[in-house]
Amino acid sequence: MRMYDLIVKKKKGEKLTNSEITEMVAGYVNGEIPDYQMSAMLMAICFQGMDAEETASLTMEVARSGDMVDLSPIEGVKVDKHSTGGVGDKTTIVIGPIVAACGVKVAKMSGRGLGHTGGTIDKFEAIPGMKMALNQEEFFSIVNKVGVSVAGQSGNLAPADKKLYALRDVTGTVDSIPLIAASIMSKKLASGSDCIVLDVKTGSGAFMKTLESSIELSKAMVEIGEHAGRKTMAVVTDMDIPLGYAIGNSLEVIESVETLKGRGPKDLTEVCITLASNMLYVAGKGDIKECEAMAREALESGRAFDKLVEMVEAQGGDSSVIKDTNKFGATPYRSEVKAVRSGFVNHLNTEKCGIASVLLGAGRETLDSEIDYLAGLILNKKTGDYVEEGEVLAEMYASDKALFGKAEKLLQEAYLIKDEKPEMQPLIHAKVTADGVELAPVLAQ
Amino acid sequence: MRMYDLIVKKKKGEKLTNSEITEMVAGYVNGEIPDYQMSAMLMAICFQGMDAEETASLTMEVARSGDMVDLSPIEGVKVDKHSTGGVGDKTTIVIGPIVAACGVKVAKMSGRGLGHTGGTIDKFEAIPGMKMALNQEEFFSIVNKVGVSVAGQSGNLAPADKKLYALRDVTGTVDSIPLIAASIMSKKLASGSDCIVLDVKTGSGAFMKTLESSIELSKAMVEIGEHAGRKTMAVVTDMDIPLGYAIGNSLEVIESVETLKGRGPKDLTEVCITLASNMLYVAGKGDIKECEAMAREALESGRAFDKLVEMVEAQGGDSSVIKDTNKFGATPYRSEVKAVRSGFVNHLNTEKCGIASVLLGAGRETLDSEIDYLAGLILNKKTGDYVEEGEVLAEMYASDKALFGKAEKLLQEAYLIKDEKPEMQPLIHAKVTADGVELAPVLAQ
Repeated sequence: MRMYDLIVKKKKGEKLTNSEITEMVAGYVNGEIPDYQMSAMLMAICFQGMDAEETASLTMEVARSGDMVDLSPIEGVKVDKHSTGGVGDKTTIVIGPIVAACGVKVAKMSGRGLGHTGGTIDKFEAIPGMKMALNQEEFFSIVNKVGVSVAGQSGNLAPADKKLYALRDVTGTVDSIPLIAASIMSKKLASGSDCIVLDVKTGSGAFMKTLESSIELSKAMVEIGEHAGRKTMAVVTDMDIPLGYAIGNSLEVIESVETLKGRGPKDLTEVCITLASNMLYVAGKGDIKECEAMAREALESGRAFDKLVEMVEAQGGDSSVIKDTNKFGATPYRSEVKAVRSGFVNHLNTEKCGIASVLLGAGRETLDSEIDYLAGLILNKKTGDYVEEGEVLAEMYASDKALFGKAEKLLQEAYLIKDEKPEMQPLIHAKVTADGVELAPVLAQ
Repeated sequence: MRMYDLIVKKKKGEKLTNSEITEMVAGYVNGEIPDYQMSAMLMAICFQGMDAEETASLTMEVARSGDMVDLSPIEGVKVDKHSTGGVGDKTTIVIGPIVAACGVKVAKMSGRGLGHTGGTIDKFEAIPGMKMALNQEEFFSIVNKVGVSVAGQSGNLAPADKKLYALRDVTGTVDSIPLIAASIMSKKLASGSDCIVLDVKTGSGAFMKTLESSIELSKAMVEIGEHAGRKTMAVVTDMDIPLGYAIGNSLEVIESVETLKGRGPKDLTEVCITLASNMLYVAGKGDIKECEAMAREALESGRAFDKLVEMVEAQGGDSSVIKDTNKFGATPYRSEVKAVRSGFVNHLNTEKCGIASVLLGAGRETLDSEIDYLAGLILNKKTGDYVEEGEVLAEMYASDKALFGKAEKLLQEAYLIKDEKPEMQPLIHAKVTADGVELAPVLAQ
């Protein structure tokens, strides 16, 4: 009867109290509240929304449904980063070492990939011997010693979020900003860092397709973080084009290593510098200009790359493959996707690129799928580039020739080639802090 | 995946096609669509609504989920009536015999009471020997012979409605006009009558509290009926005040008998005449004036009362108790509720009167509760009446003295007595047909 009253209250557009939200989350996790009542509530929230206080309460309750990681055994300020998911997003591999090289601790728990976006854990596992399932003691000790560690998410981090997300996924209730914000932030709060920088992707390849909705989500998450006493900010970055050129696990590690050696693609490098600068800034390392200079210095000096080597070795990985990336080896088969006409790439469908890489073996379609760490693709041309008919648009790598057909079809569809040059989007669209929204250009590029 | 798409479609405010609604209802009834998806859909419908075509499709599918009663073995035009539920509503007992006495067949399937509104089946069962569980053959034969029969609803009438209603009841999705209209009309369409007159209650004691929403519901139901080829109309009647003075099973039968003998309360008599006239009208017995004259004549001549006697006898009931209602007997205990101040009754909370009668033993709180057929209450004063301090407002009847305390408390709360005379509402607020809405006064009273 109680849950019934809460559904009706929310349906009418009224505000749920903290204690109502507490009871609701607890009741849902322990099975007293059935799925059919929770799904009606979630749909009512999609229509009526939740204010900042309700969203903060929901987030805290979902976080508290499992372990609240206590990072105090790690000395100094701990900063966390979260990207809302994108194709070819290897920023964690680059940023963690940069920030650690500047003296701020990064204790990052990360997820596996599912569907068209890859997961950071899978990418690191492309390095032979790399151990991502660390226990708390190992994890803390590596962060204390190296300054950075990336580990698989503990099984009991925000279990209420897992249950709620599974229900939202089948009841058409995913696209609610307070629900998305609570889902992401509950895991960040449970992970225990002092400061949080959110990388909110926007554009055709992102969950948030418009700048407005990306800023709205950013604001909701920053408010939650600040409400919970964590210094929090968000950077809205472009996901209309895949980040960098490589999509696939070892291919992305190689591109990350190149970036850490100062030879990476400009877009990836700039996004990484922006996020790392802001992480240093929220951790109190100086003003934003100073932090940016620090981040660039760490990259250019090779100190950031050295941190990656240290971290890989600490987690049992074979660092020789990142020192000489040729040692990764390659898939037995390679195939090219060629332009069927000349012109400028006006649009590149990021989601299709992601799905093509999954088809080549680089991702998993279900949680049980096996990953081919060497498979994937390299985009030779991206939005804005000119291409001649017959020129190579992309290279595909797979362990089975039969996989090329479908992937090539998708990639051909992904490229929109026209005579006119397209208008380019900025790489960094906005920065959202507790003080407000700053629109691009937020960093000189 | 399919139901997911339908939820998202409705959530966006798009229209579901006939075949989508067909698949959805079928999938829900056979268990392929889980409750948690249907409840999300129902909540989306509460926010986005359904148009006339969607509502008609839903109604037909829900009707077709069970038996579609074929009334063709009954000769002549069959007319059905449905009231949306009210306290002290004994109209069926009065109207069925009036309409039958005028030569139009009434084959009425009715429900039991639950909560604060009583059910027609329970009221008839207050007559000793009365058999309400008729098989189809018995039911048809009585209607053919007498012209009217009231029987308990078959177990398999619109089973999809039972399942949907049970879910709506616990997920806060009851108050959606298309869903209410589909629920009521699915049972009416499955019951098989040619013509349908809907008695839509409006006011504080009704489900629809405002005239606007009552008219909206009426329009939706009339549209469904006409769409399904049934001559359908609705009369919006007042339920700001209980109908008549008696609440309780035998007490209401006695008041109905008095009404059929021309000695009933004015409000009950007028509502019954209005509904009966309109039933005769939709059945094609003449213009509305002629039909009203016919209905009044049936009442005044005693022919309508004779029809009730015939029906009771045909269903095995002891007609001596309706010929001499003293034979019903009375509860061993009686108690009075007295006015605590002088003044005019400005408002009478109909729902509280209904709950008080349930507390006295006249209704059931759960489906298994036993009914005390003699228990209930008589209202001596209703809205608009003047009362002196200490004068009797209502009489209570129960088989256990201990029941009076709580019921009296509720009844004292139900009466709002003030110095000024209240403004009175019309008894009949509006008439809704396929041609449009006619507002009160729709009948000379």
